[in-house]
Amino acid sequence: MEPVLPLPPGLTDAQFDGACEALRAIVGADRVITGEERLAPYLDPYSPGVADRYAPSGAVLAGSVDEIKGVLDVANRFSLPLWTTSTGRNYAYGGAAPCLNGAMILDLKRMKDIEVDPELAYAMVEPGVTYLDLYKFIQEKKYHLWIDCTDPGWGSVLGNVLEHGIGYTPYGDHAGYQCGMEVVLATGEVLRTGLGAMTDNPAWPLYKYAFGPSLDGVFTQSNFGVVTKIGMWLMPEPEVFVAVEMAFRHEEDIVPLIDTLRPLRLDGTIPTATIANWMRIAAANSTRSEWDDGNGAMPESAIKKLMAKMEIGYWGLRFGLYGRDAVVDEKLEAVEKAFAPLGAEIMAYKVRRDEKVPPEFGSLAGIPSVDMMPLNWLGGTGAHIECPLVVPMQGAAFLDLYRRRTKLFNEAGFDQYCGLTSTTPRCFINTASIIFDRDNPEQCARARELGKALIEDASKHHIAGYRAHISEMDLVAAQFAFNDHAAMRTYERLKDALDPNGILSPGKQGIWPKALRNAKEGDTP
Amino acid sequence: MEPVLPLPPGLTDAQFDGACEALRAIVGADRVITGEERLAPYLDPYSPGVADRYAPSGAVLAGSVDEIKGVLDVANRFSLPLWTTSTGRNYAYGGAAPCLNGAMILDLKRMKDIEVDPELAYAMVEPGVTYLDLYKFIQEKKYHLWIDCTDPGWGSVLGNVLEHGIGYTPYGDHAGYQCGMEVVLATGEVLRTGLGAMTDNPAWPLYKYAFGPSLDGVFTQSNFGVVTKIGMWLMPEPEVFVAVEMAFRHEEDIVPLIDTLRPLRLDGTIPTATIANWMRIAAANSTRSEWDDGNGAMPESAIKKLMAKMEIGYWGLRFGLYGRDAVVDEKLEAVEKAFAPLGAEIMAYKVRRDEKVPPEFGSLAGIPSVDMMPLNWLGGTGAHIECPLVVPMQGAAFLDLYRRRTKLFNEAGFDQYCGLTSTTPRCFINTASIIFDRDNPEQCARARELGKALIEDASKHHIAGYRAHISEMDLVAAQFAFNDHAAMRTYERLKDALDPNGILSPGKQGIWPKALRNAKEGDTP
Repeated sequence: MEPVLPLPPGLTDAQFDGACEALRAIVGADRVITGEERLAPYLDPYSPGVADRYAPSGAVLAGSVDEIKGVLDVANRFSLPLWTTSTGRNYAYGGAAPCLNGAMILDLKRMKDIEVDPELAYAMVEPGVTYLDLYKFIQEKKYHLWIDCTDPGWGSVLGNVLEHGIGYTPYGDHAGYQCGMEVVLATGEVLRTGLGAMTDNPAWPLYKYAFGPSLDGVFTQSNFGVVTKIGMWLMPEPEVFVAVEMAFRHEEDIVPLIDTLRPLRLDGTIPTATIANWMRIAAANSTRSEWDDGNGAMPESAIKKLMAKMEIGYWGLRFGLYGRDAVVDEKLEAVEKAFAPLGAEIMAYKVRRDEKVPPEFGSLAGIPSVDMMPLNWLGGTGAHIECPLVVPMQGAAFLDLYRRRTKLFNEAGFDQYCGLTSTTPRCFINTASIIFDRDNPEQCARARELGKALIEDASKHHIAGYRAHISEMDLVAAQFAFNDHAAMRTYERLKDALDPNGILSPGKQGIWPKALRNAKEGDTP
Repeated sequence: MEPVLPLPPGLTDAQFDGACEALRAIVGADRVITGEERLAPYLDPYSPGVADRYAPSGAVLAGSVDEIKGVLDVANRFSLPLWTTSTGRNYAYGGAAPCLNGAMILDLKRMKDIEVDPELAYAMVEPGVTYLDLYKFIQEKKYHLWIDCTDPGWGSVLGNVLEHGIGYTPYGDHAGYQCGMEVVLATGEVLRTGLGAMTDNPAWPLYKYAFGPSLDGVFTQSNFGVVTKIGMWLMPEPEVFVAVEMAFRHEEDIVPLIDTLRPLRLDGTIPTATIANWMRIAAANSTRSEWDDGNGAMPESAIKKLMAKMEIGYWGLRFGLYGRDAVVDEKLEAVEKAFAPLGAEIMAYKVRRDEKVPPEFGSLAGIPSVDMMPLNWLGGTGAHIECPLVVPMQGAAFLDLYRRRTKLFNEAGFDQYCGLTSTTPRCFINTASIIFDRDNPEQCARARELGKALIEDASKHHIAGYRAHISEMDLVAAQFAFNDHAAMRTYERLKDALDPNGILSPGKQGIWPKALRNAKEGDTP
């Protein structure tokens, strides 16, 4: 029997058909999708076996602010819940799939407008603009500007900012380098934030603070409005850039590594940095079965064999140095001097302006790739779950966390795929990815349990996630319990004020509209 | 006849006395101030003759979060409007005085707690902590950290962030370097933003983005809550710092000056910069009467005489370079090379770690001073009005604006005291200060008219202010008219949601509670 698509909660078949009919009048018949097959791309491709609980009832592709206003009008009239996506590439966090089973996808991938100011070094982009689009646009215009992008580069620039995403150049703090926002509120009102609230103000994408409160932040990781345009600051192409890589042999080396890195990040010598553990390095070119015949976590002897054979460290550190040639040379010298006592092997590769950047250093130079994260460590159809944390940049505390998590991974039969990225100088985003075979239901269940255990363990130690899979949004939100969940109560008050009918992305980041709040209580999947 | 203090709008004498009685029970009898004399410090010291329209009914000095909760409870019960100040040093913008005549001052200067983490380089401060306090705290602990401060340093670190204030070191973008906030909402609920929404999370002051929307921005330049604590990032003391000054002879030199500065700001060579015109330089050591016998704007001949005699340029540029000795040397060389074609005289003064910073470069090193801005240009009791703008970092457009404003200043009988500070690389905060004698009613009236004219002229050219005197908040707010004032309508919706009884700082930044919205319409003084 063919699975039947869910209806939006509370709507009858006839009401849903009526809503779709009204939507077709706005965006065109072909841009309202209700057929099973054409909806498949909106399902979570990496779902740990829960995709059927997060299925859309349909999708509507709006192509302009006016069309969005029309769609919102219909949604308000029909009580149709919408789940907004830019390009839907939010993989590992649910892709384009909605928190609320039966919500309709509001897909903005048709909105692809790009403007770039080469003198003041910024771009204005709509939701459908991918990193690849923006990169290509700048290349074609021959502007001497870099973008900063995630890995891979097919996602939405705007969507990534809204999800608090990061990258690998000095502009890797994406929300930090965003400036100026256009939002369609649930009521259909178009709002421009900051200096954009004055018509034609040229400083809209240049300065974050205007007269009055700064609203950009409330439209990130929320469901308070539909963001239709953002300004992004772009980095001027540097005179030179040096890719630096270091390897550290032992697990415990992470302590001096982090403690040596911290002052160099704080004083601006190193503008961003990423650390990877052995598995993250190895999984790029290898699979588990090459090293061990078992099924669970790799035994220590196999990890040692892998490291020796692949000539990699337990930890790898990687970053770029950027700027004037002479300045970069001085910085590199300072880096080498600082890390020398740790006995690290240091590799440095200099690229001058107009020279070709080797593909392996592309992400350090903001060059988008289409290479996916390697997911075939355990074979089958690879997928990953992410429960990324924000951790202080202090070595000993991190080693404690890492060992605790390794234990949890191993007990669940997985190895820990660990990364640390410092886009700001006082902390890391710490990913501990669970790589699993999504065609193996038993593995899916284990991966899901492990995800939950990681979140709860972190919380017990007062460390928090900054992002979550749609199936874990309620759980992660619940960890922010200061003063009896005062933050969530505030979000809910803002939600009710800005989206009184609760039509926008119900459940996103654990924020539910009034009508669904009680219904959802205790219903964390 | 002694002037009578205003009552809060809508309250009878008896009701106000009842409210004060209730407040005394919370903070102690001596901390509820209603006597004329003890309220004098809450009047606007630089008022252009309108102080009597912005007088408080009283002041209450809360010393803790619990006391603030108690005060808010009373305010809600008695419909008592409160005007929150940290230390009340918001001079030129109203000082501690309220937008709403008869509001009661909620004074937080007793809250002086400071914590500093020397390893992760941040401070947590309460509202009453001044720059001088924080500086002294760090000096006494011998931490190798710098603060960034305004001129002068007696103001509140927290208050300045909330007003979008700026400073003169690489950490001069105060709101940008703020991270983590504790807020008491009008309902008495205590909220911690970001990662602080998880109890005891050590990354609260380290990373701005948590799970869910980022709220810090909505509590700046608003009246949505009482901010009781913020995190501030601190700059590690650099190995060396070089103070650089340049003079440019002609008015039109501002075009190549700005256009040469821009790429050096964008590529990080220069981390911040301030430009001053002849009057801002001269007024530090001189008064108008030394150069001309007249009364209005200085004739060109007198300006020329002044520049020659004082050996100053029409424009002065000033900034610091910070970091490792060798890196700073390379950056200075790049700066000299870039500015050489402009024929600028360049002065560079290097200060090594542990050497004494000469007082004239103190602000570039975050050393707070108690020197006031020179205000005696026209003699009498000097005061100033500020109508600061945000302007793109582009030379020709700025020269147009400057000349238009000079004309407006001169027509009003004033000279333009002009400054440009770039705390972020794509724009300047442009102050055009009106210096006047507050004891001269005719000058006050002219200054007030000029202030209005500057705001309206800027708006006509799509340039906006980011701050305003209490008497001009409605006027500046009105300039943000995109989509029929969609931004203000959104602020009002948030105001009603977070402060349903409208007790917090009515009128701040033009945001009025529901009950006062219609009453105030058309009532801009």
